[in-house]
Amino acid sequence: MPASVQAGTGQLPITQSFSVAVTGSQDALLDGEVQRFEEQLSRQTGIPFRAKAGATPTLQIHAEKGREAVQKLGEDESYELTVADSGAKLTAPTTLGVLRGLQTFLQLVQITPSGFAAPAVTIKDQPRFPWRGLLIDVSRHFIPIEVLKRNLDGMAAVKMNVLHWHLSDDQGFRVESKRFSKLTGMGSDGLFYTQAEIRDLIAYAHDRGIRVMPEFDIPGHSRSWVIGYPELASGPGPYTLEDGDPKNNQDLQAYFNQRLEKIVAKNHKTMVGWDEILHPNLPKTIVVHSWRGQASLAAAAKQGYRGLLSFGYYLDLMWPAARHDAVDPMADAAATLTPEEKGLILGGEACQWAEWVTPENIDSHIWPRNAVIAERLWSPQEVKDVPSMYARMNAVSLELEWLGLTHRSARMHMLHRMAGPADITALRVLADVVEPVKDYDRWSDAKGPIDFHAPLNRIIDAVYPESDTARQFSDLVQTFVKSDYKDQAAKTQLRTWLATWRDNDARLHPLLSQTYLLQEDVPLSQDLSALGAAGLQALDYLDRGQTAPDVWKTQQLALIEQARKPMADVLLMVVAPVQQLVEASAAQHT
Amino acid sequence: MPASVQAGTGQLPITQSFSVAVTGSQDALLDGEVQRFEEQLSRQTGIPFRAKAGATPTLQIHAEKGREAVQKLGEDESYELTVADSGAKLTAPTTLGVLRGLQTFLQLVQITPSGFAAPAVTIKDQPRFPWRGLLIDVSRHFIPIEVLKRNLDGMAAVKMNVLHWHLSDDQGFRVESKRFSKLTGMGSDGLFYTQAEIRDLIAYAHDRGIRVMPEFDIPGHSRSWVIGYPELASGPGPYTLEDGDPKNNQDLQAYFNQRLEKIVAKNHKTMVGWDEILHPNLPKTIVVHSWRGQASLAAAAKQGYRGLLSFGYYLDLMWPAARHDAVDPMADAAATLTPEEKGLILGGEACQWAEWVTPENIDSHIWPRNAVIAERLWSPQEVKDVPSMYARMNAVSLELEWLGLTHRSARMHMLHRMAGPADITALRVLADVVEPVKDYDRWSDAKGPIDFHAPLNRIIDAVYPESDTARQFSDLVQTFVKSDYKDQAAKTQLRTWLATWRDNDARLHPLLSQTYLLQEDVPLSQDLSALGAAGLQALDYLDRGQTAPDVWKTQQLALIEQARKPMADVLLMVVAPVQQLVEASAAQHT
Repeated sequence: MPASVQAGTGQLPITQSFSVAVTGSQDALLDGEVQRFEEQLSRQTGIPFRAKAGATPTLQIHAEKGREAVQKLGEDESYELTVADSGAKLTAPTTLGVLRGLQTFLQLVQITPSGFAAPAVTIKDQPRFPWRGLLIDVSRHFIPIEVLKRNLDGMAAVKMNVLHWHLSDDQGFRVESKRFSKLTGMGSDGLFYTQAEIRDLIAYAHDRGIRVMPEFDIPGHSRSWVIGYPELASGPGPYTLEDGDPKNNQDLQAYFNQRLEKIVAKNHKTMVGWDEILHPNLPKTIVVHSWRGQASLAAAAKQGYRGLLSFGYYLDLMWPAARHDAVDPMADAAATLTPEEKGLILGGEACQWAEWVTPENIDSHIWPRNAVIAERLWSPQEVKDVPSMYARMNAVSLELEWLGLTHRSARMHMLHRMAGPADITALRVLADVVEPVKDYDRWSDAKGPIDFHAPLNRIIDAVYPESDTARQFSDLVQTFVKSDYKDQAAKTQLRTWLATWRDNDARLHPLLSQTYLLQEDVPLSQDLSALGAAGLQALDYLDRGQTAPDVWKTQQLALIEQARKPMADVLLMVVAPVQQLVEASAAQHT
Repeated sequence: MPASVQAGTGQLPITQSFSVAVTGSQDALLDGEVQRFEEQLSRQTGIPFRAKAGATPTLQIHAEKGREAVQKLGEDESYELTVADSGAKLTAPTTLGVLRGLQTFLQLVQITPSGFAAPAVTIKDQPRFPWRGLLIDVSRHFIPIEVLKRNLDGMAAVKMNVLHWHLSDDQGFRVESKRFSKLTGMGSDGLFYTQAEIRDLIAYAHDRGIRVMPEFDIPGHSRSWVIGYPELASGPGPYTLEDGDPKNNQDLQAYFNQRLEKIVAKNHKTMVGWDEILHPNLPKTIVVHSWRGQASLAAAAKQGYRGLLSFGYYLDLMWPAARHDAVDPMADAAATLTPEEKGLILGGEACQWAEWVTPENIDSHIWPRNAVIAERLWSPQEVKDVPSMYARMNAVSLELEWLGLTHRSARMHMLHRMAGPADITALRVLADVVEPVKDYDRWSDAKGPIDFHAPLNRIIDAVYPESDTARQFSDLVQTFVKSDYKDQAAKTQLRTWLATWRDNDARLHPLLSQTYLLQEDVPLSQDLSALGAAGLQALDYLDRGQTAPDVWKTQQLALIEQARKPMADVLLMVVAPVQQLVEASAAQHT
């Protein structure tokens, strides 16, 4: 959602004669961006563009000046975009602003009764925060360069500008070192990036207006460093991958950070550290990255330190988009800061920690929810309406598929793997209404340490972090309840869903019992069918205007309690709205 | 289907400890192939392999000798594969045979109640024909290198060994020439392969046991050559892309071919030409490629010429797989040849002509049907059972997705493009039962010349060439009819499908009317609903044991005739089985 939008009249048709002209500042980076823009627009519409030479350009671009050779924090990203029925104009103080405006143009283009078109509109836009990042952990599971590249494409589409590359942790050191070859030789499973690949990725990101911030996690989370070089560690060694942290003394850490900061500063770089680095002995040039909450951001700002928020933006915790959307860097403790102190809060970063992702399913863990965090960091704080947020998120999600992201398509492949040659229609019905367990519930001390080389090919690994179907069903129940059970269209749709679920286990059970990856889902499917039946019976009582008997209600609530428990590490997300129907049917005459 | 299969007892589990050992002949090509094999097996199962050092290998590979540096026609591709519950062994006279055997192993691995496993089996296998090719036309629509590469992966999976690269035609010359730069400069739309890209593709194909045969189509179909060099043509010029053939005199062609063959032979290459090159003045070393049928193959063989069949294997004609499967190079006129003459028939090639494909949908036009042609050319002539062919084709189709082919997934993207942000469930119901018009029906003289730069983003471009749903529905109607209308399970399933179709237009119509790419499908959706209703009424009459009245039957047949006509260039494929139900319901007491 741009900072300012003024709707116009009419629309600009996108046809084969679409073309772009650039005036003002121009460079190879902008040329590349315009070419990618045209390719993406062509993919979105399925239209190969063939403008006639000399024709008036459809979109005129003008930038005052070029970008910094190395992207800087706080560089001007603003732009103005005017679309009229006869043409569009994009202007910006810098070519970086042009990049952002082109992504907005792509989002405006829609299919209409008369063709693809962008609605007439005047947009004046700039980001709320200068630092809008995504952290990708490549240590716990290695993520290949091509997967990172398509995620950079996605980040550019949602105007994020920092890739925080979590390159080392206990489970693997992922950067080639020519001088300390045992860092990867012993401190990884053999999977790492060469220096050439890293240079290539940085250039790829820069083309898209994204800075790459490498993270070498120290002094904790550094087991992988000392496997090859145990003399650097304080303990007796030897060390292996995947053990606990080697150090954890706060004073030692502060001393360590002071020494480290001097090295970093000498190389003209800025030191960023998690909350724990905050210590009065460190200079004000450091940036505090908060995984603990707005309180530590506020504490840092009050002492004059700049800060970033990641608390509330951990994508690996499997929260719904709306919950991330509700987290604001300026909320809670930060809301009480003075304007000067607020100015020290630079923005935030979504975090994709990699305990439970592989190159196969990482896209679906990041997208489309990351688009919502990106909007929170770009758009005005007042943009808060949840239904319209979901509408925008779904539109962006479809757009992202044209960039090669597999956040929707990977699930189909994974369900087919589990099902063998069988039809997956009934399996998809089940997968559509479950979500992975939340927060850290997949992992418990009782299960022992995580095996980072175990297969991630179960239903929990395939399903989306947030179920669209469950959300829509729940919304529909609210609509139905608010109508005092009179909304016939809502009731019909509820019945269709409930009947599909009720009948699904009969179709699905034979498959579940035949393949070992699905056997754990047998009770899950049975519970879904039971919920479908309970919901239908509740609607029957409501239809007849009868109060459901207590004995029935008690039975259904017992069943609902059973269905509420995680099974196979996933949750049935339609439990609460079905419970609502059951309780309504038992309460109507009281 | 291998030449010889002997089932054993038990199965070989595929677990994280899976490993491969190679003895005998070994080279970099084989090492690369084994690595790709392990990666593909890992993708199929979702299991990252981690064999312990020194453990007994799961699969032992032994080849007597290496491959030819440049792959030859008739090189030994045979192999033997034995799978037992304790391990598997693959042996072959050449490492090329090992490549083929590894693909068979991948096809054996299935999900079972106890895990992924390959069944115990002894296979002795070799190809029926030494030449098993796929022609891809890259002139009419340019197909980028990465799309060709994933299709080479698919070809290797189904053991094809020739990529026939149709590099030039009237619509574009696609090879960089440093000496005659106007060949691409004026004879293409700017899209062509550099010489480095061509070398890279040839190496990529060779790694996978595939020869690349370039085709420069002359003397006809060579408009693109003479645009830049009109002095080479007999007419007055100037020429433009996309006009008709510049020459067509048979005697002139024979004279031309004689001169050309001498040049080709001097470069130690073999000349292959379409049927028209057959002429007694040409030497017996040429190969006749028949697009006209087995009769010209037989005529060529009788004169001592080698031949290839492509008649019946044109994938762009949108035939069902079973129709391609029924075409055999040794059938019809070829069946009457002597054994020596039969030995001159080298095999055949599937052809993907590119009037109506783009990089986006070419995979779905080639796959999975090409797997059936590949099997026809590899497996014994007696392999003819249609239902088991479809079962194998569907299994291979799923396997191909792990190679990155988009033959299933592209449709989803294209339907979303047409639907905008709307839900596509109802649109998919319609897309599931339609196929593109067949043969050359998409194109008529009345429509004028094809615009090779027009968007290909309609429903015809998105749907699969063969509808699985329609085939399954038709099979079910046959089962129901054969049971004398008593098979209750079949009837229930028929009712479910018919009701879904009957009710679909109500859900789909609002979307169809709102987006310009779907407006043409409004009557199609209405017809599908009418067919669903007609089928359900027919089942009602059959249920009640009533003869359907004549007036009803007449109405329904009129509606069926209407629905049989192509609309929006697609065909509703459930017309015939619904008609069968209607006629059965009206005939039951006569």
